[in-house]
Amino acid sequence: MNSQEPSVFSRIIAGEIPADVVFDSDRVIAFRDIAPKAPVHIVVVPKTQQYRDVVELAAGDPGLLAEIVATAQQIADDHSDGQFRLVFNTGAAAGQTIFHVHAHVLGAGHDGGALTEGSLGSQ
Amino acid sequence: MNSQEPSVFSRIIAGEIPADVVFDSDRVIAFRDIAPKAPVHIVVVPKTQQYRDVVELAAGDPGLLAEIVATAQQIADDHSDGQFRLVFNTGAAAGQTIFHVHAHVLGAGHDGGALTEGSLGSQ
Repeated sequence: MNSQEPSVFSRIIAGEIPADVVFDSDRVIAFRDIAPKAPVHIVVVPKTQQYRDVVELAAGDPGLLAEIVATAQQIADDHSDGQFRLVFNTGAAAGQTIFHVHAHVLGAGHDGGALTEGSLGSQ
Repeated sequence: MNSQEPSVFSRIIAGEIPADVVFDSDRVIAFRDIAPKAPVHIVVVPKTQQYRDVVELAAGDPGLLAEIVATAQQIADDHSDGQFRLVFNTGAAAGQTIFHVHAHVLGAGHDGGALTEGSLGSQ
């Protein structure tokens, strides 16, 4: 995202918009999705809004992408059973609504249950 | 995956199991999922079976993870409209069935249409 306008996520990071934050480090923040699609649904976001999607992030800072993945595991350990689906929507037609790269971490929660592959890409 | 046993993906790479390969480089291979969940559904796999999931891959070789993301974009450009959902299932309860790390690339195809966020984690 190269616009000067702060993204919704940057406004959350700045404390201008409330969020249920579950993780906060120097470079990464995570909070619950306001419209959860699974028992546990947390969004993991790099604090910089320099990268609009995972492709830009992977090309520009692979180490930061790796940090997001490690954070996802920590969140799954803390809030679910340690297993998770990691999703990056890339482009509006693929469901991306905010062009400040973010990962969706989806888990079944502590009560067990399971995600299935059956709905990965349903339209 | 630390087992000596070749994974299903390693057997595809070795040519022992047929697959509809759409991309093949030194370190990465991609082929169509045999049970597609979207008009375009391609699996992107590092040729090494050293990493069982995206967490191990991110920790062990962030550059290879970045290469998988770049490959996903190229596949979406070649086989769909350039937009895609990138999914890493991590753990059996999250839908992972083969413990040789792989990314699912889901796209709507050339005919338009769109993936929605609604089904990200349906159980």
